[in-house]
Amino acid sequence: MTTPKARLSPDDPQWIERLCSGDRATLARAITLIENEAASAQAVLRAIFPHVGHAQVVGFTGAPGVGKSTLVNAYIGELRRRGKRVGVIAVDPSSPVSGGAILGDRIRMSEHGADPGVFVRSLASRGHLGGLTRMTVRVVDVMDAAARDVVILETVGTGQSEVEIAGIAHTKVVVSAPGLGDEIQAVKAGILEIADVLVVNKADSPLADQTVRQLRDALHLTKRPGWQVPVLRTVATTGEGIAELTDAIVAHAAQLDPSAREGAPRLRMRRLIAAAAARQARRRIEGLQGGAFDALCDAVLKGEVDFETAAQQALHPDFGDET
Amino acid sequence: MTTPKARLSPDDPQWIERLCSGDRATLARAITLIENEAASAQAVLRAIFPHVGHAQVVGFTGAPGVGKSTLVNAYIGELRRRGKRVGVIAVDPSSPVSGGAILGDRIRMSEHGADPGVFVRSLASRGHLGGLTRMTVRVVDVMDAAARDVVILETVGTGQSEVEIAGIAHTKVVVSAPGLGDEIQAVKAGILEIADVLVVNKADSPLADQTVRQLRDALHLTKRPGWQVPVLRTVATTGEGIAELTDAIVAHAAQLDPSAREGAPRLRMRRLIAAAAARQARRRIEGLQGGAFDALCDAVLKGEVDFETAAQQALHPDFGDET
Repeated sequence: MTTPKARLSPDDPQWIERLCSGDRATLARAITLIENEAASAQAVLRAIFPHVGHAQVVGFTGAPGVGKSTLVNAYIGELRRRGKRVGVIAVDPSSPVSGGAILGDRIRMSEHGADPGVFVRSLASRGHLGGLTRMTVRVVDVMDAAARDVVILETVGTGQSEVEIAGIAHTKVVVSAPGLGDEIQAVKAGILEIADVLVVNKADSPLADQTVRQLRDALHLTKRPGWQVPVLRTVATTGEGIAELTDAIVAHAAQLDPSAREGAPRLRMRRLIAAAAARQARRRIEGLQGGAFDALCDAVLKGEVDFETAAQQALHPDFGDET
Repeated sequence: MTTPKARLSPDDPQWIERLCSGDRATLARAITLIENEAASAQAVLRAIFPHVGHAQVVGFTGAPGVGKSTLVNAYIGELRRRGKRVGVIAVDPSSPVSGGAILGDRIRMSEHGADPGVFVRSLASRGHLGGLTRMTVRVVDVMDAAARDVVILETVGTGQSEVEIAGIAHTKVVVSAPGLGDEIQAVKAGILEIADVLVVNKADSPLADQTVRQLRDALHLTKRPGWQVPVLRTVATTGEGIAELTDAIVAHAAQLDPSAREGAPRLRMRRLIAAAAARQARRRIEGLQGGAFDALCDAVLKGEVDFETAAQQALHPDFGDET
């Protein structure tokens, strides 16, 4: 047992045993195979299939400058104190060139790098958003199979892409900070509706009270049934409020339908397939040739046909076949 | 002719005459009818249909804090000096509650408010993004019919929503500013690929050279055939560089296929219908009941079927009909 481990193939039953025990080298290799869409990627997916659905997936979203990376780092520390094994996926949809470490990876690497209970991976866009979302879901599944109790999904920014990726998570934490200015507050408003937990980081700032109030007001407008979205204060640099944040995430997970976690991989896949189908439909319709579609466009322009009816017609596979 | 004008209905031939002559009161009313989806909105659309396709649509996108509103204001001033009639649509996809004046509307109102050649309208999200994009296209068409030579589309932020809305424009101007920090630069990277003209505003800052260099480098990575995207420097507060910006926008429009402008309303409609169809497909597939879709999801999870094939299957109207 002290000899170095042989490199196994994902087809080997021992390989999946190692992965499921949380072996980091095996996990790293599995992710690389999937990322590179290697021939053996399919073997990885087949092997992990019976083992996914255990991890809680927690998303962190927020505008640049709110201290998100430091906060995630402090949260990881708290999870470790509670004996949880952690996977972190840092996703940057806006950066097509990164490929290396992004966001606060270096901070985390230096603090948790020696800890076998923490595994960090960065994903950057290698083309279109759909590809990145799929890759993220695949990596979540692999980490889930590899005995991570919690998988953290951290995205940079607050755009539509980030919202799409955050949608993979069971619990979505939206992070803000005091005094970022009105325009930035407005940008953030769009992601409030996806928040399960709201955090005002840098809460030692004198402007924190005002930000908390603004968020509570905004929440009031987007009220949802069932779960009361808490607005928490943290100072990530000192660890203040991190235990409360961790408790709130646990509480949110606890009130979810128990089937939600086990069914999560299939539910994520459902969304991915629906998204891919939507993109296919869009591409096909935008490329339609011939007079039928032009006539349909003119009818909508004139207000004779409404958008949804036109869309339904165009969606039919036989539409626009004539030339 | 000195008596106050009677309020006409869009069904009245005089109404469309007034609108096409650029009468502001008629334009304002037409937009309100469309915004409120009033019963007479259809009459408006029918009336304007033969009169759209003249205006050049110019989009301005950029992160908060780059001075976009001041820049747009200076650009409006330059267009007016050149004798152009201008329509401005300020769109805020992130704010569901606005409804009133957003962005730099107040600046513009005070400077150009008395000028009959400038017409400004704000649009905020009244629900989902698709609805906002449609509304924006409708308002572009009405302004186009109402003798606007240039319709400016200004969006707040740089998210996917802003990119979708900017896609309506013939010419897309992406605005940035020096010294906004690496993270914000990264956020901006995602919208570089849509830019026809790049502007570094606040170019009197000592950091401007560095920002121009970074943008040129980034452009190099996303090179496109045909049009060479210029990187321009402006100081919107003093008017420096505004004439050059206006020239660059004219130059970009001049090299477009002449049919692109006349066909623009139909092209915009094509995209809208395709987008609506994509949303319909997504909604239907996410809601599919029964074992067939679950089995398909599992097959993709195991890597037996790829996403695109699964999406194609799910997209078929007969898929998942059994219970």
